[in-house]
Amino acid sequence: MNTLENKLVEWRRDFHRYPELGFLEMRTSTLVASELERLGFVIQIGREVMSAEHCLGKPSETETKAHMEWARENGAAEKYLDEVSEGYTGIVATWDTGRPGPTLAYRVDMDALPIYESTEESHVPLRKDFRSVNTEMHACGHDAHTSIGLGLATMIAENAEQLNGKIKLIFQPAEEGARGAISMVRAGVVDDVDYFIATHIGIGVPQNHFVASNNGFLATSKIDVTFKGISSHAGGKPEEGKNAMLAAANAVINLSAVPRHSGGMTRINVGELHAGSGRNVIADEAVLKVETRGETSELNTYMKEYAESVIRGAAQMHQVGCGIELVGEGISAKGSPEVAEPLHECAEKTGLTSQVQSDEAAGSEDATFFMDAVQKQGGYATYCVLGTDLAAGHHNEKFDVNEKSLLQGVETLFKSAVKLTNE
Amino acid sequence: MNTLENKLVEWRRDFHRYPELGFLEMRTSTLVASELERLGFVIQIGREVMSAEHCLGKPSETETKAHMEWARENGAAEKYLDEVSEGYTGIVATWDTGRPGPTLAYRVDMDALPIYESTEESHVPLRKDFRSVNTEMHACGHDAHTSIGLGLATMIAENAEQLNGKIKLIFQPAEEGARGAISMVRAGVVDDVDYFIATHIGIGVPQNHFVASNNGFLATSKIDVTFKGISSHAGGKPEEGKNAMLAAANAVINLSAVPRHSGGMTRINVGELHAGSGRNVIADEAVLKVETRGETSELNTYMKEYAESVIRGAAQMHQVGCGIELVGEGISAKGSPEVAEPLHECAEKTGLTSQVQSDEAAGSEDATFFMDAVQKQGGYATYCVLGTDLAAGHHNEKFDVNEKSLLQGVETLFKSAVKLTNE
Amino acid sequence: MNTLENKLVEWRRDFHRYPELGFLEMRTSTLVASELERLGFVIQIGREVMSAEHCLGKPSETETKAHMEWARENGAAEKYLDEVSEGYTGIVATWDTGRPGPTLAYRVDMDALPIYESTEESHVPLRKDFRSVNTEMHACGHDAHTSIGLGLATMIAENAEQLNGKIKLIFQPAEEGARGAISMVRAGVVDDVDYFIATHIGIGVPQNHFVASNNGFLATSKIDVTFKGISSHAGGKPEEGKNAMLAAANAVINLSAVPRHSGGMTRINVGELHAGSGRNVIADEAVLKVETRGETSELNTYMKEYAESVIRGAAQMHQVGCGIELVGEGISAKGSPEVAEPLHECAEKTGLTSQVQSDEAAGSEDATFFMDAVQKQGGYATYCVLGTDLAAGHHNEKFDVNEKSLLQGVETLFKSAVKLTNE
Amino acid sequence: MNTLENKLVEWRRDFHRYPELGFLEMRTSTLVASELERLGFVIQIGREVMSAEHCLGKPSETETKAHMEWARENGAAEKYLDEVSEGYTGIVATWDTGRPGPTLAYRVDMDALPIYESTEESHVPLRKDFRSVNTEMHACGHDAHTSIGLGLATMIAENAEQLNGKIKLIFQPAEEGARGAISMVRAGVVDDVDYFIATHIGIGVPQNHFVASNNGFLATSKIDVTFKGISSHAGGKPEEGKNAMLAAANAVINLSAVPRHSGGMTRINVGELHAGSGRNVIADEAVLKVETRGETSELNTYMKEYAESVIRGAAQMHQVGCGIELVGEGISAKGSPEVAEPLHECAEKTGLTSQVQSDEAAGSEDATFFMDAVQKQGGYATYCVLGTDLAAGHHNEKFDVNEKSLLQGVETLFKSAVKLTNE
Repeated sequence: MNTLENKLVEWRRDFHRYPELGFLEMRTSTLVASELERLGFVIQIGREVMSAEHCLGKPSETETKAHMEWARENGAAEKYLDEVSEGYTGIVATWDTGRPGPTLAYRVDMDALPIYESTEESHVPLRKDFRSVNTEMHACGHDAHTSIGLGLATMIAENAEQLNGKIKLIFQPAEEGARGAISMVRAGVVDDVDYFIATHIGIGVPQNHFVASNNGFLATSKIDVTFKGISSHAGGKPEEGKNAMLAAANAVINLSAVPRHSGGMTRINVGELHAGSGRNVIADEAVLKVETRGETSELNTYMKEYAESVIRGAAQMHQVGCGIELVGEGISAKGSPEVAEPLHECAEKTGLTSQVQSDEAAGSEDATFFMDAVQKQGGYATYCVLGTDLAAGHHNEKFDVNEKSLLQGVETLFKSAVKLTNE
Repeated sequence: MNTLENKLVEWRRDFHRYPELGFLEMRTSTLVASELERLGFVIQIGREVMSAEHCLGKPSETETKAHMEWARENGAAEKYLDEVSEGYTGIVATWDTGRPGPTLAYRVDMDALPIYESTEESHVPLRKDFRSVNTEMHACGHDAHTSIGLGLATMIAENAEQLNGKIKLIFQPAEEGARGAISMVRAGVVDDVDYFIATHIGIGVPQNHFVASNNGFLATSKIDVTFKGISSHAGGKPEEGKNAMLAAANAVINLSAVPRHSGGMTRINVGELHAGSGRNVIADEAVLKVETRGETSELNTYMKEYAESVIRGAAQMHQVGCGIELVGEGISAKGSPEVAEPLHECAEKTGLTSQVQSDEAAGSEDATFFMDAVQKQGGYATYCVLGTDLAAGHHNEKFDVNEKSLLQGVETLFKSAVKLTNE
Repeated sequence: MNTLENKLVEWRRDFHRYPELGFLEMRTSTLVASELERLGFVIQIGREVMSAEHCLGKPSETETKAHMEWARENGAAEKYLDEVSEGYTGIVATWDTGRPGPTLAYRVDMDALPIYESTEESHVPLRKDFRSVNTEMHACGHDAHTSIGLGLATMIAENAEQLNGKIKLIFQPAEEGARGAISMVRAGVVDDVDYFIATHIGIGVPQNHFVASNNGFLATSKIDVTFKGISSHAGGKPEEGKNAMLAAANAVINLSAVPRHSGGMTRINVGELHAGSGRNVIADEAVLKVETRGETSELNTYMKEYAESVIRGAAQMHQVGCGIELVGEGISAKGSPEVAEPLHECAEKTGLTSQVQSDEAAGSEDATFFMDAVQKQGGYATYCVLGTDLAAGHHNEKFDVNEKSLLQGVETLFKSAVKLTNE
Repeated sequence: MNTLENKLVEWRRDFHRYPELGFLEMRTSTLVASELERLGFVIQIGREVMSAEHCLGKPSETETKAHMEWARENGAAEKYLDEVSEGYTGIVATWDTGRPGPTLAYRVDMDALPIYESTEESHVPLRKDFRSVNTEMHACGHDAHTSIGLGLATMIAENAEQLNGKIKLIFQPAEEGARGAISMVRAGVVDDVDYFIATHIGIGVPQNHFVASNNGFLATSKIDVTFKGISSHAGGKPEEGKNAMLAAANAVINLSAVPRHSGGMTRINVGELHAGSGRNVIADEAVLKVETRGETSELNTYMKEYAESVIRGAAQMHQVGCGIELVGEGISAKGSPEVAEPLHECAEKTGLTSQVQSDEAAGSEDATFFMDAVQKQGGYATYCVLGTDLAAGHHNEKFDVNEKSLLQGVETLFKSAVKLTNE
């Protein structure tokens, strides 16, 4: 076991050094696929496990190509590079015991954030020499998740005789911004799954603690809006312009004015607005980054639909065009006791202080799409949280996890695989 | 002539005592028609000279019926009452000399304003006992115009041998709010007219002065807007409402934000806004009174079309319905020298200090529709101003004209009829 | 007891026939005071029990005087009429047993609503001939409350030997709009109170049921806003105006855009907006009726303070003045188990199906000011709900209660007085 | 003369190749100063002729330093480099004849625009190899102006015996954005000037034509606005943010809604708006680039003051701070016939088709500050336009002048110097 612990740390630090943004996890995914193949898993990667039309907020072709070069130069595994070269970086690795039993799926995510990692001496990744080599950063723990996924794969391969049925390991791209899950769901990767477990590290749960079913997810939609008008000289021919900025400004205020809903918590935010290109020119373009949330998917849908109506009306007012693009989405979800309770018991056996369920409001997650799909077809799903000591909060430039949690996570998940396939 | 002067004063004071709002001039028009008939004119009245579908901002049937009773009780001429009972109160009185010659038209207006006339001792109509008997008031001089029209008719009848061709006297309803002219134009009353002269008293021109062609009219549109939403309890079910007030508020601000136009002067105003019926209820209705203006008809059209786009967009933003009703309209116009110059000479002969033309920006007028129609068919049209001493500005509760101007006006106009039909 | 039941119905129907709006309950309060005096209570009425400066949203002097005449003509008791003639219509009636014991207070409210009562045949008040004689209506059950207050007084007077300590009956004006309670609190009427019980009929609790402690009150502020600008001719001198409507429109939208609060439910509504006096005149005045609510008083304060900031900013934007007047206020409150539990037991003994506590979100109530004051000085307070069958919802023109509830309420309250003064 | 023509072209092309933005004309001004010194003028440069505190919209110290290096590397004249190293690049070159006579001033401007010059084959500067070496461009003809200034200096030096009094040549930085003139005026450079002539090439006047007094300048103010709020997590703690974007959006709409002015043409534009830094973060900063214009300085002041009031009100509404910085300003001006008429005669003598005066609305210009100062002290000032064939409009990437105009301009200006100092 000592060896696995070392490997977990080694993997995690390697991923930490080479962070990759969503739909660009080319180095990460090819290395992961190689290792999984080495362990004996059947590998599906790229378009086979991702629906292209359901990828939300995918980077441009130019960015994708540029990063491809970077990945190649930074140690990606050539074998799988072709298959992920267009940014379809998801992996499903299957272990079929050949024996009857349920199908289990474990999901981890692989993407990093556009955050510049701290250069302070006290920051452990700097001191221990695994600070990011580029301007991105694993500031949410997905490096740990990927490492745990590989650890779990290792234990499965080494202890396959304890298992029955089938185990699928899902390595998801682009969780940040809630963009990648839906494309794997639509590709059908959980269509045969009876039990589904997604894992996250940290998010407020202390070291040596565990939550088997985290339920407080807000449904969310991320929307990019572009207003397109016509520019003209503001002094000379103001009437010839179609002012995209005026439309955008009306949208911003009225989006904030979407009525509260008596059914529960709702949120809306326009986080960015950029319009215009010169002081004396009528602005012909304005772009907005918008986000809605709701305590339930219904509440989020209310917010999103009202928002669209505001955006279209604002465009109509000033006779400009508008494009509304959904670039991220998460739904609300509740874990199934049928999988949360066994998982809770496994955590306790691993020596963690576990609770079955927590309903505290949390952020948004697109693992909820997997959960929803599995539950709708009669299966059971949960989202568990593995406690850890954090050096700083999620999405902070000094974020760091306690690596002791890695093995705890792997053991708990492996125990759950044994338990769920032997009942 | 002394007798005519007395009659002019008598008529004017009678109309002043019994003011009637636009499309409700039932007492006025029936008395006018009776007098014109007595003088030997051929009378057309009501629907014959007005297109029902082009009457803008017509009072409701209830108001119309109620006023009909008032008119009957206050001395209307029974003979014509049926024909004006639905509020179509326009008159065209024709004098055909039987001799070859051009067709001339003189237009006056008859309606009063919803202004409560002054009760101060110094106010001449009070002192001389012809103050309004109701809550309306002739505060713009249309009582004088109607009187001048009758005076002109008298001189025509008494001096018919000096004239040739045909003379049409047009008594128009509902000039205030720019509502009545278009319906007479569309009924074709100036289709055969070669020379057209509209007359206004006052508006800044001093006693014994005359302007033969007043050109500074602003084109204008008067628009009533109604937003229709759905009410709901603002505390209990805010999401069930469709907030008409929010739409209206957005419309108000964005109407003010219609871009300036490099082609010339534009104006826009929302003069009234009423929305909602209770503090804790989402407002399900909001009504706006809007007005656009432009130095030219094109500029006003720009304003009006942009305004409609704002109104529809505001409704769309908050998912409410909207109704846009045109309740008044005037266009811009320029007098024809071919009629302005002879008219100018006649004014000078009458002893007035006259100028051919004035381009100072003035208010709006729907006589411009007559002018435009006549000019478009190859005729000549002008709008002249008869100077007078005013006791107070137009639309003021102490407004009063100097009655000495009445005969001056009649003589000038009669001279122009002689001149124009003898060239 | 049969007699009391008859009396309760008689009182209630009399109050129902003669509804009076808040701070105008002159007929009601003088009749109540007379009856209480007859029963032997010590009466305090008017300014003695109301702080003039804390009366919110009081009608104008003209309205007050006019209603005074109405009250006199409709059977008000002359004896007390002087004391309530300025609209200070609150009463505190005290029964001092002379024996040691706690001080109890029971509060009922007396005002009606500006709703025109149904004239349908099926409406019981019409059929039984106690429909409102004017255009107001008891559509919230305060007629029943006042009747219950008199019934409780009757039982106290007739069974005084069962009681100890002191009993205060508070008849509050102007509960609608949350306007009257604070002025009685500030006059000190509950400064000596150990136990406080407010009562409401209906609001969702079915016949023969009872809630001893209703807790879901939203804190609320009712605000009237007046923007004062300068009018000018919109065509002629737009720059000379100061547009109050523009300020108001900005306020409306931005009030709706006050950010949601993570601490719990908030609400805001502008229910009425009236601005401007003529289509072509820059609006020099605009008035708004605004309401904020919050799950707690802190949340309501957040909304109210943000709202004030929006209003002042909107005025500043367009250089107009603004006046903000608080015309109603309620806070959030939680009942004390120390009084709710005994009350619950008394309800059960009366034969009602009772529950100690309900936390369902309800409307707003200014009885919360009494509760807060009593609790802050170490006493115990609760707000109980007496179930009844309703013919239609509160504030509906067909609202009607089942009169069988009246005696149930009186008995429960009397039992609580016995219990609380004998512990 | 042939030689001078060649020199004019050479100078112009050299300046065209090395364009420099406002307050960064280090290469240009040092070369100009060297040449003027060589010709025998007395040179004042830098802080001596510019008031530091009145420089509007000056680039940052970093930009200034960086450009200084560029200038050094691209052929700036070392002698004057120190004096302009901080971006005070204005020059006043004086020729004192020693004989009695008036003081004349000729002003040209030197700065370029942030426009990327066309790379199309048909573009003459490309074909003739003087296309810009950097990303800036002389797309408004200031390269021609500077060349004309040097040509005029040459003729003055070579024909000094024809002149009397004193001639001052003013080379102004940062005319684009209307930023540089005021600082030279405040430094007193025209305090002793009797006749002032500013020159522009093109702007609609055709080749071989000349306008001696161009009057249609709009007064203008350029304003940068920064709203400063507080960021917070839009999902987690929306109430802790202070939303700068909401303030900015309100400002944008209400700036567009500043009422039209009956006194003449006004304009307002928000050309750029940038706010926020992340989709789920309350925006803590928003910046706006605003511009007002007016047919007169009074009208522009009306717009600017109303705009400030809108900006402050918008900040107040959402409780954010705001900074308003004036970064450019021009006033309206009318040329003096006392200098325009002699200049007109000189143009005709040069063979140009000249008109004394043109009142067509044009853009804005800060030469108006010089004109205003000279006229206020009793002198005479004009702004003349030298016609030329343009390859494309001003501020277009294909802008180019016909170099034949250069000598025409120089000769006309020199003739005016002779004429005005010999009267």
